[in-house]
Amino acid sequence: MCGIIGVIGSNSSAVQAYYGLNALQHRGQEASGILTSKNINNKYQFSYHKGIGLVSEVFNDNSLFTNELFGNISIGHTRYSTTGSSDSRKNIQPFFVQYKNGNLAVVHNGNITNASKIRESLIKKGAIFQTSSDTEVILHLIATSKYENQIDQLKDALSKLEGAFSLIILIDGKLIAARDKYGFRPLSFGRTEDSIIITSETCALDINSAEFIRDVNPGEILVFNENDLFNPASINFEAENKIKHCIFEFIYFSRPDSQIFNINVDKIRRKLGKKLAEKHPVKVDNNEKLVVISVPDSSNTIAIGFQSQLSKLGLNSKLDIGLIRSHYIGRTFIAPEQGKRELGVKIKFNIVKGVLENRHIVIIDDSIVRGTTSKQLIKLIKEAKPKSIHLRIASPQILYPCYYGMDFPSKEELIAYKLKNNLDDIRNYLEVDSLEYLTVDELLECVSENNPQNFCTACFNGNYPTLIDNNFDKNKYDN
Amino acid sequence: MCGIIGVIGSNSSAVQAYYGLNALQHRGQEASGILTSKNINNKYQFSYHKGIGLVSEVFNDNSLFTNELFGNISIGHTRYSTTGSSDSRKNIQPFFVQYKNGNLAVVHNGNITNASKIRESLIKKGAIFQTSSDTEVILHLIATSKYENQIDQLKDALSKLEGAFSLIILIDGKLIAARDKYGFRPLSFGRTEDSIIITSETCALDINSAEFIRDVNPGEILVFNENDLFNPASINFEAENKIKHCIFEFIYFSRPDSQIFNINVDKIRRKLGKKLAEKHPVKVDNNEKLVVISVPDSSNTIAIGFQSQLSKLGLNSKLDIGLIRSHYIGRTFIAPEQGKRELGVKIKFNIVKGVLENRHIVIIDDSIVRGTTSKQLIKLIKEAKPKSIHLRIASPQILYPCYYGMDFPSKEELIAYKLKNNLDDIRNYLEVDSLEYLTVDELLECVSENNPQNFCTACFNGNYPTLIDNNFDKNKYDN
Amino acid sequence: MCGIIGVIGSNSSAVQAYYGLNALQHRGQEASGILTSKNINNKYQFSYHKGIGLVSEVFNDNSLFTNELFGNISIGHTRYSTTGSSDSRKNIQPFFVQYKNGNLAVVHNGNITNASKIRESLIKKGAIFQTSSDTEVILHLIATSKYENQIDQLKDALSKLEGAFSLIILIDGKLIAARDKYGFRPLSFGRTEDSIIITSETCALDINSAEFIRDVNPGEILVFNENDLFNPASINFEAENKIKHCIFEFIYFSRPDSQIFNINVDKIRRKLGKKLAEKHPVKVDNNEKLVVISVPDSSNTIAIGFQSQLSKLGLNSKLDIGLIRSHYIGRTFIAPEQGKRELGVKIKFNIVKGVLENRHIVIIDDSIVRGTTSKQLIKLIKEAKPKSIHLRIASPQILYPCYYGMDFPSKEELIAYKLKNNLDDIRNYLEVDSLEYLTVDELLECVSENNPQNFCTACFNGNYPTLIDNNFDKNKYDN
Amino acid sequence: MCGIIGVIGSNSSAVQAYYGLNALQHRGQEASGILTSKNINNKYQFSYHKGIGLVSEVFNDNSLFTNELFGNISIGHTRYSTTGSSDSRKNIQPFFVQYKNGNLAVVHNGNITNASKIRESLIKKGAIFQTSSDTEVILHLIATSKYENQIDQLKDALSKLEGAFSLIILIDGKLIAARDKYGFRPLSFGRTEDSIIITSETCALDINSAEFIRDVNPGEILVFNENDLFNPASINFEAENKIKHCIFEFIYFSRPDSQIFNINVDKIRRKLGKKLAEKHPVKVDNNEKLVVISVPDSSNTIAIGFQSQLSKLGLNSKLDIGLIRSHYIGRTFIAPEQGKRELGVKIKFNIVKGVLENRHIVIIDDSIVRGTTSKQLIKLIKEAKPKSIHLRIASPQILYPCYYGMDFPSKEELIAYKLKNNLDDIRNYLEVDSLEYLTVDELLECVSENNPQNFCTACFNGNYPTLIDNNFDKNKYDN
Repeated sequence: MCGIIGVIGSNSSAVQAYYGLNALQHRGQEASGILTSKNINNKYQFSYHKGIGLVSEVFNDNSLFTNELFGNISIGHTRYSTTGSSDSRKNIQPFFVQYKNGNLAVVHNGNITNASKIRESLIKKGAIFQTSSDTEVILHLIATSKYENQIDQLKDALSKLEGAFSLIILIDGKLIAARDKYGFRPLSFGRTEDSIIITSETCALDINSAEFIRDVNPGEILVFNENDLFNPASINFEAENKIKHCIFEFIYFSRPDSQIFNINVDKIRRKLGKKLAEKHPVKVDNNEKLVVISVPDSSNTIAIGFQSQLSKLGLNSKLDIGLIRSHYIGRTFIAPEQGKRELGVKIKFNIVKGVLENRHIVIIDDSIVRGTTSKQLIKLIKEAKPKSIHLRIASPQILYPCYYGMDFPSKEELIAYKLKNNLDDIRNYLEVDSLEYLTVDELLECVSENNPQNFCTACFNGNYPTLIDNNFDKNKYDN
Repeated sequence: MCGIIGVIGSNSSAVQAYYGLNALQHRGQEASGILTSKNINNKYQFSYHKGIGLVSEVFNDNSLFTNELFGNISIGHTRYSTTGSSDSRKNIQPFFVQYKNGNLAVVHNGNITNASKIRESLIKKGAIFQTSSDTEVILHLIATSKYENQIDQLKDALSKLEGAFSLIILIDGKLIAARDKYGFRPLSFGRTEDSIIITSETCALDINSAEFIRDVNPGEILVFNENDLFNPASINFEAENKIKHCIFEFIYFSRPDSQIFNINVDKIRRKLGKKLAEKHPVKVDNNEKLVVISVPDSSNTIAIGFQSQLSKLGLNSKLDIGLIRSHYIGRTFIAPEQGKRELGVKIKFNIVKGVLENRHIVIIDDSIVRGTTSKQLIKLIKEAKPKSIHLRIASPQILYPCYYGMDFPSKEELIAYKLKNNLDDIRNYLEVDSLEYLTVDELLECVSENNPQNFCTACFNGNYPTLIDNNFDKNKYDN
Repeated sequence: MCGIIGVIGSNSSAVQAYYGLNALQHRGQEASGILTSKNINNKYQFSYHKGIGLVSEVFNDNSLFTNELFGNISIGHTRYSTTGSSDSRKNIQPFFVQYKNGNLAVVHNGNITNASKIRESLIKKGAIFQTSSDTEVILHLIATSKYENQIDQLKDALSKLEGAFSLIILIDGKLIAARDKYGFRPLSFGRTEDSIIITSETCALDINSAEFIRDVNPGEILVFNENDLFNPASINFEAENKIKHCIFEFIYFSRPDSQIFNINVDKIRRKLGKKLAEKHPVKVDNNEKLVVISVPDSSNTIAIGFQSQLSKLGLNSKLDIGLIRSHYIGRTFIAPEQGKRELGVKIKFNIVKGVLENRHIVIIDDSIVRGTTSKQLIKLIKEAKPKSIHLRIASPQILYPCYYGMDFPSKEELIAYKLKNNLDDIRNYLEVDSLEYLTVDELLECVSENNPQNFCTACFNGNYPTLIDNNFDKNKYDN
Repeated sequence: MCGIIGVIGSNSSAVQAYYGLNALQHRGQEASGILTSKNINNKYQFSYHKGIGLVSEVFNDNSLFTNELFGNISIGHTRYSTTGSSDSRKNIQPFFVQYKNGNLAVVHNGNITNASKIRESLIKKGAIFQTSSDTEVILHLIATSKYENQIDQLKDALSKLEGAFSLIILIDGKLIAARDKYGFRPLSFGRTEDSIIITSETCALDINSAEFIRDVNPGEILVFNENDLFNPASINFEAENKIKHCIFEFIYFSRPDSQIFNINVDKIRRKLGKKLAEKHPVKVDNNEKLVVISVPDSSNTIAIGFQSQLSKLGLNSKLDIGLIRSHYIGRTFIAPEQGKRELGVKIKFNIVKGVLENRHIVIIDDSIVRGTTSKQLIKLIKEAKPKSIHLRIASPQILYPCYYGMDFPSKEELIAYKLKNNLDDIRNYLEVDSLEYLTVDELLECVSENNPQNFCTACFNGNYPTLIDNNFDKNKYDN
């Protein structure tokens, strides 16, 4: 997963990109970069700064100024990556090259499912590849397009791509947004008085006091010209748009204060909690009081919805804070002797004993992937000696890998797949008194009343909206 | 403010100190250090590592191992400091020296109010001072004591100190805890199977899976000997103990999952919220629904208490998440153009528009110091166009400086003092529809049913438990 | 200028490359890198480490091991560059890509004079360029060659290049050396028991205890196969070889302990000194003693030759050390107030007063480029109050820029050009009592008895061996 | 060994100290620091910056300016240390404290031989020690002196010290130089137009364009007052001055362009070479030509003297450069696989084969300590197949440790001691055809015609000028 941003208009575009990347930090903590284009005597020049680490770390040395990131167009990227390959430094975005029509730079969120095939075909024709990223494929497709006009080149290139891509492209004098026909990943734009900001999530507009305009449409190319900022050209590069938004953006990935796919994230999360309570309530003897706690911070809003619905159902409950999360445990934390002691979860979470002791506890979590964190968390909670523990998950069982950018592990590591989707076995493994998931239908009811078909649920039911190349190795090329 | 820890017993004492400091990180993010004593051929040797930054940053290079922090006794410190003086690197604790009885190292949380006087008197006698920290004073008092026995020296030294001090001292073969007679700052100890852990807050025991034993008593010296770990000697160095716990540890400073002064912090916070609702409820026309939001994370528990009490009072309300806090904005964040744009609060908080728009909002905050953050936060919330904004503060107006370790600014910068404690003026300044604080009595009712006199409330009413030297410059020597 | 090395054979090839780069450090101090290829399950994989700084700085963190630079083929590069462009990090060599025949990596010393033209033509065909280096052009030419065999591709590519190039290329299982038909830059190879080492100068063989075999011939491609190390294939890619060695390698650039162009550098330098004394001796009244001093370290050997020849001529002289050079003044030295005070030369050199005072001084220097350093040096020497100062330069006046890799400034900055090659004016400018240069013929007599035409002397007389593109901007693309 | 500097007068005193430390870098490469005193509203304040590394590395980040090292008095230090103890960071000088008379800072070159005893006695009286450096002892002695006047305190303190100390002390408004009664280590001062500079070697005056005034006398305290810069008060703190200059400063340690002990270093070195040739010439059959080479750079001047004397003796010889030293091999060089391959010397030196092959070689070196480097160097030279190798050493055999600051190893590691001072055995060990040392008398003849007794030769003959405490552990406290 990644967060992307593009700014055109003001000469402090890099500063706006910087603030935006800070707001998008949750989408990727491994590396980040900003590239700026400036017009010097009618020649466009690129400056950039990128590095390993949080946005605040990469830009902690006044790089915004010392590298002269002063220009009226900037793009930025923040990356999540599990691969520690020695290539990783080269793969940090933005990517930029010179080609026949001038300068070309790009940031990308998503996963090109046919990148491998295109790459091979380009290489056969004499192309050279300097990184293992599928984003480089896009640059080659543009450069080798038979068309002369840059927008035609882009249309040509994008029409060859399969999979998920939200792109922001910087060419001389222009900032371009583009999104795959399924609209897998979010991409919106907004404006301030003198600039346009394109970004993954609207929270990056808010931090810049920018006004939201609309989403970039699936299959749309939007071209912002530095000379006519507020009248972008809109081109559809795909005739038919089968919208398939990633439903996990709502469940877990996006920030609750963002609006994506035209809906407020926190609104959906509250609905998920309500639906979960309605369909999978927790009942204990004598209607003894239930203490509802969330796994902070991602499930906080879900827990609020859950408890309010429980109340409506007449179930005796209250919301409380039973887990404290340490926010100082960042990338650099080293856990000595981790082998010896089971510290994992303990470093990140601590229990509030007074809240949990001798109570019936309902834990609200957004999803279960491998199950290992949940298992450790429940073990930790048991130290407080609750009367009972009930786990409610605001999504269905994850049974299939994602080919569109979510960083799930291989099938074999998914706990639901591993235990053959047997609810009892998962409950036993996690050692809780009860366990319920939302069903796919319940989930879809929450996110969309009218158009449930507009969401991708492949990770739950295997219904992939695109053909999946059998040879596709999702770990081979990271975005 | 600072967080301190001491561990004696196991040879991974430094690792336990490291985990503990991570849990105490909220007490100070500026610098941290660990010092370990090991017995090599019956000679005790000190190793240490300290630096500027978060615990995870200071120890991000395997320093725990490469510096051979392997010994059976360790002490650690994490510091908060506003001073950017060029001395700051020297002032990082632990402090350690060699003196007539061998090695001596110390970590300190608090503020010695007569440090300046003692320092001058020691200097007159020929002492040299290498730092500006009042902790160095303690080392000199011990070293120049007329007594031969180390515990006698310590008693002698501590009896000369005025003010707040929770100390952990490491001498050859022993770990010692000591606390001023007022017990201003918390200090507890617990045990694992093979080690004793002394620390500011019990959350540092939890992260080490240690069992809480008890608080170090005000005026008590507790000596743990490496040869008889679990039978510490307890010495009272002060005849009369006038307990004056810092009430701000409950309101804001300590972690909610800690137990300090023998009470769970989160329990007190919930009570503060309930009392605030009971005494200072918010009423709107037609009992329209109130949306209660907290300023995360410090006020989360207070908000839960507040809303639950509102419900009991029959007031139509719900708890919601109206502010999102960015946890990636750390020490190193640089705000370019901050002069131009009012970014301050925006970088740290974002509003959830859907929650706030067209609603009656009650904001729960723990305290107001300068008022600048509150003012900006309210301005931000107004962007979502709520119907009305009501601010409820879980503590009284802060009118006096703290001489015992809380990092309050000078009187003149305190908003309540500046506006002559006129509630209407403060409300106007903050631009809210209503504003209420807890009174000192209401506050005391929450923290202690029987012994309200056991808490220091000097910052609210100026009743300082100790004599305050007129010349005392609280900014001169940081701890 | 740059230094390059390639090693094939032993699994510690990267370590050998590292030692070699240390020996080549004088050829470039700005940046360096090593890339290693290893065969894992019959798949070749590249690992690399590169960075800004001296070789010892770039590899000061055990990068040789932590980055797993373990493979049987390695190439390395150390770069000199005056450009501080933000591209500089991307331009650090080795360069490497994937292309149709597998992996391809390259290090380059020299300057492709038609790089700009080729680049444009490649770009027109759809190529994308990620750096501003002319080395990237070579990679594209190989990848887009119509040939299938890698050696044919290389021949094809090299035949299109004009200018100076000594290349070491790494492909799967093979290490390849290639040199332009003029043999502008040196390139030799040698062997240890189990490995082949190709390198710019033989001092990089010595540090690895490798035995010199021979120079790579001008216009030759030499292919070392991992399975048959010591029987390389030799291919001539140019029919006609007009040898034009860079004469400045002898005068200044190469290390005196190296053998280049089949001659020992120190031997040539001694000859330069002798010729200089023979043709341009210094005579003072009454045959008073002359003190011959060198500008350390580059002119040391020249000065020895000069003084020994003076003796033979019956001139009363002795060699002495009149200038001390500080070797600690490296890349990172910051000269505060440099505007105010004329520190430049003073930081680098100090005079030995006792040697210079009241003496007739002959200063031996290898060359004069801008003249500013010489001027300051002479001013410094005058502080010691010598009787007279005589400057002897072991090369002719530099009047023309170099298009083949020597880092000379533009014509306008060359002192000899600026003063219209008027010896008196230069002497007056430098404020010395006498000044003499070697003539081009005298210089050629020193380097070659039989084949003076085999050396490039374009910087002295403008006789460029290749066509020079009028549009060629030597500063545009650095190698 | 260390280099020290003090500057009083101009507000760029720190910049002058910085330049000076660069010139003194050869005296210590491990760590360095500068401390500046400035008068702000009649209150003196210290600022400092210090760190591990070369001067150019420690101050490579504009620390000279960002740390506000702007004041009219500065002191600086550059340190050599073999100890890698975890205390090393604390031991970096300048040291500074506050004491009864105000601020006090010091830099020290030398070794206090009774530091251990004084330290113990101070500790008994209640002093605390924060470092293991003997310099801290001096600070305590000053602070605990019974005198009120600072100069009296200093006299009092210095009169208690034994051993070697060249000190520069900074107190409020004054800069003070002091030197032990033996004058073991050099200490001079000079002036610019508006400032006084005190320093270890005159090369640090030269770099600042300062004029040499004179040496600080053995047993002298010199007090420079900011209000009357050029009229320092001179106080003798020792009645009887038995001058014992360290003769090794001439042989090896000082820079040849410095004047120390009132003599030019390079002059002495030339004399050493001449004496060595005169007393220990090399003769080969048929008066075949001898090639004299030096071990660069320390022996360069010695070799010049040696060869010129050989000529006078009618011996057929010439000086040449047979060894090239790499100046890029600094502190950070990592030698991988050093165990496997004998790289040591090879990394630092390379041979010039053409100079050595089939010749009779005379190697001139200043001294032999452990013998390991010499042995490896000779082995390296033999690779060039010389006819014969003759080693001439410009000092006597080192048989005793130095207690006055030279970093010699323990007796047992000294090759001359190990081989019982048997010349034949040493020659056999080094595998040379002939080996000769200067005798102590010959050495003394070179350095002083009239006062040979003014030099310490303890390392050659064990005649220590001071009592040596049997318990003295020269490795315990580094300066």
